[in-house]
Amino acid sequence: MMMRKTGDHEGPMGTIAISGSASGIGAATRAMLEADGHTVIGIDLRDAEVIADLCTDEGRRSAVADVAQRCGGALDGFVSGAGLGPPAPAASITEVNYFGSQNLLEGLRPALAAASGASVVQIGSNSTTITPNVPDALVEAILDEDRRAITAVLDDIGEPFDSAIAYGASKIAITRWCRRQAVTDEWVGQDIRLNVIAPGAVQTPLLERGDDDPVYGPLTTQLPVPTGRGTPDDIATWITFMLTPAARFACGSVVFVDGGSDALIRTDDWPSTFST
Amino acid sequence: MMMRKTGDHEGPMGTIAISGSASGIGAATRAMLEADGHTVIGIDLRDAEVIADLCTDEGRRSAVADVAQRCGGALDGFVSGAGLGPPAPAASITEVNYFGSQNLLEGLRPALAAASGASVVQIGSNSTTITPNVPDALVEAILDEDRRAITAVLDDIGEPFDSAIAYGASKIAITRWCRRQAVTDEWVGQDIRLNVIAPGAVQTPLLERGDDDPVYGPLTTQLPVPTGRGTPDDIATWITFMLTPAARFACGSVVFVDGGSDALIRTDDWPSTFST
Repeated sequence: MMMRKTGDHEGPMGTIAISGSASGIGAATRAMLEADGHTVIGIDLRDAEVIADLCTDEGRRSAVADVAQRCGGALDGFVSGAGLGPPAPAASITEVNYFGSQNLLEGLRPALAAASGASVVQIGSNSTTITPNVPDALVEAILDEDRRAITAVLDDIGEPFDSAIAYGASKIAITRWCRRQAVTDEWVGQDIRLNVIAPGAVQTPLLERGDDDPVYGPLTTQLPVPTGRGTPDDIATWITFMLTPAARFACGSVVFVDGGSDALIRTDDWPSTFST
Repeated sequence: MMMRKTGDHEGPMGTIAISGSASGIGAATRAMLEADGHTVIGIDLRDAEVIADLCTDEGRRSAVADVAQRCGGALDGFVSGAGLGPPAPAASITEVNYFGSQNLLEGLRPALAAASGASVVQIGSNSTTITPNVPDALVEAILDEDRRAITAVLDDIGEPFDSAIAYGASKIAITRWCRRQAVTDEWVGQDIRLNVIAPGAVQTPLLERGDDDPVYGPLTTQLPVPTGRGTPDDIATWITFMLTPAARFACGSVVFVDGGSDALIRTDDWPSTFST
């Protein structure tokens, strides 16, 4: 019922980098930001200003250097959205989803600090809370950057479900990294807001590859989504809002926008009490 | 850096009820919605269209009837914001924060269902996750509407900290109630989106009464807020966004907007894994 027009703006426009800009949520966010007059530096394997493979150290380093050069050393925002999901190989999923995000966040931090009041949105996932049986040891191994331990846990799980477990674990790890960093001198202390959005089942190429898979299809298509599946635009609206100064009191938050799957499956688990 | 002008809109304007509209976050939300052209039905002890004491059954019933009559039976949105905090008496805190919210949410649900795509934002709190030693038994007693058990637990805690415990417990209970309800046929099934915002330390009359209190002052003023304290407008921007159709893929979400206190204190506790 209540409408708000997009495409209106005032004041200086910003320069925002987006990883995973060529498809899905990244592409929808790009279109919305450009409609609002912002300059977008896209990072992807194709159809982007910065072509880079975030599955490799070299690709991540070149992406950081290229973005820093293109933004002239000051970046107003970053949407860390590049990601892989099942049925991609488990090892590639952890490389892109965790290291591809974490390396770019760290690498672009100086350019973000050089801007005035930069905002960063990491794309997490509700797979962090609704994927059963993700081993905490895998989350810890990823956060420790211990690739030997990562491989050991994933080998232990084995195909085909190692990919789904790697997806959930990599998204928990990057979310946790963001929550740990957001409140530090390096981030909030430099006036950079770092928050996470946790989308649910959104009709994107990533999810559709899962739907079409003989093993994962029955799982993804049967996931209960109380509102029905979302569209990339349903997430891009939140991301573009979270990038604005109007959203600046959020810091280290994990914003679930998932059609109710987390509320349905983990209803009473959060918020939870704690004891001292 | 990136700006978005407020006060722009297109399409039909809505009618939105706000409890706690006379001060703090409620008043800031009212001003923003009115600037966007919406009609607000305020509910408060004073300076509101609907004068009611949400501490009593009778006040809650009369508020529901009055709002339903004033909106003509169809309500586009509801911001459930009336609340009490320490050093108010613990019993009053649970009455207003839980029953005052829950009774109005239930009572206004038919009018919300009669609108097209209504949105509801319950004001929770980051006290749900950062208040230590809230007894789960108190949360359960509130959700069970067992006033005898509520009194027993609160008496056991005793003054003066029963008020702070009642605050955290009442906000956990209403948040949990919202998560349970949001995904049901009565809410999402009627195209009503029910979500919760969890503000942190915001400079409001509620928090200032805590600051001025000899017992609570040292606690509230020393609470770590990585960004520094927020303003009512910092929360109203999120609430007004959450009321728009652009936010509609969120369902049963708890959106922390708290300057980083939850990320600092409960860093690794959510998202968390679970086992089947």
